[in-house]
Amino acid sequence: MESILTETYSIYFNEAAYMALNEHLNKERYSKIFILVDENTHRDCLPIFLSSLETNSDVEIIEMEAGETNKTVETCIQIWHALSELGGDRRSLMINLGGGVVTDLGGFVASTFKRGIDFINVPTSLLAMVDASIGGKTGVDLGVLKNQVGVINQPRMVLVMVSFLSTLDKRQMSSGFAEMLKHGLITSEAYWSQLKETRLQDPMDGYIYQSIRIKNEIVLQDPRENNLRKILNFGHTLGHAIESHFLQKGEKHALLHGEAIAIGMILEAYLSSKLSGMGTHQLEDIKHTLLERYKKVKLSEEDKKGILSLLIFDKKNTHGLVNFVLLKRIGDSVIDQRVPEHLFMEAFAYYEE
Amino acid sequence: MESILTETYSIYFNEAAYMALNEHLNKERYSKIFILVDENTHRDCLPIFLSSLETNSDVEIIEMEAGETNKTVETCIQIWHALSELGGDRRSLMINLGGGVVTDLGGFVASTFKRGIDFINVPTSLLAMVDASIGGKTGVDLGVLKNQVGVINQPRMVLVMVSFLSTLDKRQMSSGFAEMLKHGLITSEAYWSQLKETRLQDPMDGYIYQSIRIKNEIVLQDPRENNLRKILNFGHTLGHAIESHFLQKGEKHALLHGEAIAIGMILEAYLSSKLSGMGTHQLEDIKHTLLERYKKVKLSEEDKKGILSLLIFDKKNTHGLVNFVLLKRIGDSVIDQRVPEHLFMEAFAYYEE
Repeated sequence: MESILTETYSIYFNEAAYMALNEHLNKERYSKIFILVDENTHRDCLPIFLSSLETNSDVEIIEMEAGETNKTVETCIQIWHALSELGGDRRSLMINLGGGVVTDLGGFVASTFKRGIDFINVPTSLLAMVDASIGGKTGVDLGVLKNQVGVINQPRMVLVMVSFLSTLDKRQMSSGFAEMLKHGLITSEAYWSQLKETRLQDPMDGYIYQSIRIKNEIVLQDPRENNLRKILNFGHTLGHAIESHFLQKGEKHALLHGEAIAIGMILEAYLSSKLSGMGTHQLEDIKHTLLERYKKVKLSEEDKKGILSLLIFDKKNTHGLVNFVLLKRIGDSVIDQRVPEHLFMEAFAYYEE
Repeated sequence: MESILTETYSIYFNEAAYMALNEHLNKERYSKIFILVDENTHRDCLPIFLSSLETNSDVEIIEMEAGETNKTVETCIQIWHALSELGGDRRSLMINLGGGVVTDLGGFVASTFKRGIDFINVPTSLLAMVDASIGGKTGVDLGVLKNQVGVINQPRMVLVMVSFLSTLDKRQMSSGFAEMLKHGLITSEAYWSQLKETRLQDPMDGYIYQSIRIKNEIVLQDPRENNLRKILNFGHTLGHAIESHFLQKGEKHALLHGEAIAIGMILEAYLSSKLSGMGTHQLEDIKHTLLERYKKVKLSEEDKKGILSLLIFDKKNTHGLVNFVLLKRIGDSVIDQRVPEHLFMEAFAYYEE
């Protein structure tokens, strides 16, 4: 696959990625290279990655605990200390080898260590490949509030090694696929239709490439999310609140990001049918397609109340109002839509019926 | 005094500052305005500031504990939570009303809350006016290591109200004056000579203006400190280590930033006389001038060892080597100078003799 170039960095694929990385390391001559992993990528991905790495710089491995519940400022403090103690300086490099938690958190730690060192993302999950590692959003959660603390700062490069996906279980793959379905819903009915026909065990390279291109083109036009970039939040306004709510209930209830976003997309598709002109046929198509792939989650009345009270904290809100991205139809979206409160309960009812 | 314009923001003085601020608030219509203070600026400066503030936006006051020992990530966590709980969103504004601790920490909190909100610095100490609040360096300490965590991000405006200096004690004024003396040493012998003749009780407006201009011109040419901006670190390589060391010994031993930097400037002036051609006459002038204003601090052998072992952590170091800014003569400096270790003890001996 060809590389995707952006203004400030490039995204490389598979064998070309290792070549580009080694060339970059040879040119930059970093004082030290830190590789951030979690226990899973330490075991499954790091040996493969190290075997292709060619550098004369010292390499240090830093391991964090896996999982969204560890995407916290407290984990950052541990890693900042580790970087200091291991002699990290302003000419050090951080390589984030992992899923979205590792790339989000590692990107933030690197962007703030000694006021910013270079970092490279090597996403190992489908979600991180098509979403988290692209676009420069870094950050951590504050309590249950997702991504409350972070910066927008681009990596030096992103390296997509599709073979790492073989380390993922089906639920993780499915979570990442939700973001790809979203790319179809917000920009291209043709892509949505292709993805509907795709099974998770099918070869994914082409679709991963297409999703990254879609996201990248949106981000390039509006890196700081003033306008266009907001469309990437389709399904996320309610989806984030759902994810936070179940995170709050404890780890055994927690949904994966894509699982929460899938619910959010059904709910927000319903809102779209009421407010932005999406037809009933397409609404049914979205619900049917998503429920086929993402098992319906039982929501108690208390759950719904908890989710709605978290909405107000979503970082896309301003002036105390909740802004939504809605669909005009599949493949065409509209930002900054305000939703009357009574529709939320209707949307939940539609999801459940 | 005329305003100083930079590429991305402006620095306003005295009455013009309030006018510019109110105009800005009227234009931007922030969803909420948070004013960060410490207990001192809450009592001494906030009432004056609020009496000139004209806005329809909600205003919330957030108070942190004063002092360098509170410039920590832990304090940031408290303020990020406060911002969330008080309904802060991406269209909120943060005004940092205080000395260098408040502007450094508040700038970092704002730059990272929901991936960055606008902030305005209103420095109330001489140090913050001529140094900390200008140039976009934000950050906090990590343990005793100064400014290990932070970002470079410019404020929307800086408002310099010289009248706030009447709230400072002599020791605080003297601390800020050290940075002004540094501005003379690194760029202008004429300015150094003027400052030598100045007493702290003299009118300062003109000198504050000149120091801000000097710093601002340097930062504009090299905002990310790749080259030229490093000259602002004269006296700071050893000075930071000295400050950290005494901070580590406990609050009652702590030196103010400028007091530590004054020692650092004498030591690094000595290194300059050995390595970068500064004459003995000027070296003596620097030592004499600084010791007249900053009482000699007793350094035990243990202190010296502690200071030197902290040197390695200074964030200006790369590849494990310690880089210094040295003077060729008063008013002319040179960056990236490596210093043989044996000279450090000689420099201490010169300071003490």
